[in-house]
Amino acid sequence: MADQQHSYKLIYFNSRGRAEHIRYIFAFAGIDYVDERVPKERWPELKKCMPYGMLPVLEIDGKAIAQSNAVARYLARQHGLAGLDEWESMQCDVLVDTLGDLKQGISQYRHEEDPFKKEEKKAKLWKETIPFYLNKFEQNVAENGGYSVGTTTTWTDFLFAVALENFEQIFGSAALENYPALRGLKQRVHEIPAIAEWLGKRPQTEF
Amino acid sequence: MADQQHSYKLIYFNSRGRAEHIRYIFAFAGIDYVDERVPKERWPELKKCMPYGMLPVLEIDGKAIAQSNAVARYLARQHGLAGLDEWESMQCDVLVDTLGDLKQGISQYRHEEDPFKKEEKKAKLWKETIPFYLNKFEQNVAENGGYSVGTTTTWTDFLFAVALENFEQIFGSAALENYPALRGLKQRVHEIPAIAEWLGKRPQTEF
Repeated sequence: MADQQHSYKLIYFNSRGRAEHIRYIFAFAGIDYVDERVPKERWPELKKCMPYGMLPVLEIDGKAIAQSNAVARYLARQHGLAGLDEWESMQCDVLVDTLGDLKQGISQYRHEEDPFKKEEKKAKLWKETIPFYLNKFEQNVAENGGYSVGTTTTWTDFLFAVALENFEQIFGSAALENYPALRGLKQRVHEIPAIAEWLGKRPQTEF
Repeated sequence: MADQQHSYKLIYFNSRGRAEHIRYIFAFAGIDYVDERVPKERWPELKKCMPYGMLPVLEIDGKAIAQSNAVARYLARQHGLAGLDEWESMQCDVLVDTLGDLKQGISQYRHEEDPFKKEEKKAKLWKETIPFYLNKFEQNVAENGGYSVGTTTTWTDFLFAVALENFEQIFGSAALENYPALRGLKQRVHEIPAIAEWLGKRPQTEF
């Protein structure tokens, strides 16, 4: 474990979800932290104490910070995971928010209650939205030789690795068949020794 | 106009929307840029050429960059509008994404087609979601003596000023009655000479 000046407690549910890329950053940087996984029955009470009533929250030296990507960006900048310069940091941010747009679309489909609209949304996602974004991402990663930004590992790679894993889980393992560069990115991240070690020991959860 | 090494073209619709805080940054920093406002009828054709089929896009020396907040953060970091250190930059990011969550909720209400569900969403927004977030923001700005982060003007102040203006427009000018610190933040931003000058000359649009 690296020497560290700060204490960290990551508070989330017992799931990968919006916290897993933060856990990857901690693993990669060799940072010790408390990986607190809140049981569902404790959440209604705890929710009232969280800055905006949502998780994940990272406690840094006891101060509770909300918003997974704000937290991840902060940690990434401190540990060489935000690109080589401000231009690359911006490229990371562009991809993070664009992936966020795609995830938002998928989430709206998953939460749609009307069965007719749900089918409609699924068809549009599957035929238009997902291929549109994945083709863009694929081309970008292929051009960068396997990296989402530049020529170094960034927190955006971690976010993609986590998202692609979820994506295969929701839509089946063939879902990335036509996206060899994205599969390659995920594999490269999973083979980083510190990440591989984390994958081997992390709690197994559905999402 | 300040000396500048780069050329900028901001591409958006003829509206404040997701581009106005970027225009505030340009105004504040005295940066020259082309403020291209795409007529609706040109959009279907132009859409195909945009990085992810969406606006705003900022062309920096001819390179098209998507995602308004990624662009705004990049410009803000270069022009002293991202807080005094990385900790404050993170606070900016937390507020930007939290305000994004609230705007997402309002947008889902505005786009709801089912009149019954629309009323339901409006009631929940009005009674729960909006007061929850605005009270948090109000308390934060009051504690910081009128700033959203720290003790200096940040791009988050600009994002709030724009959002609060839209908010009063959607829900009426009394909507911020109970939030004096937020009204004060908006007024302070609007009175910054470079911003006041921009407000005086910008195209008048509905949103």
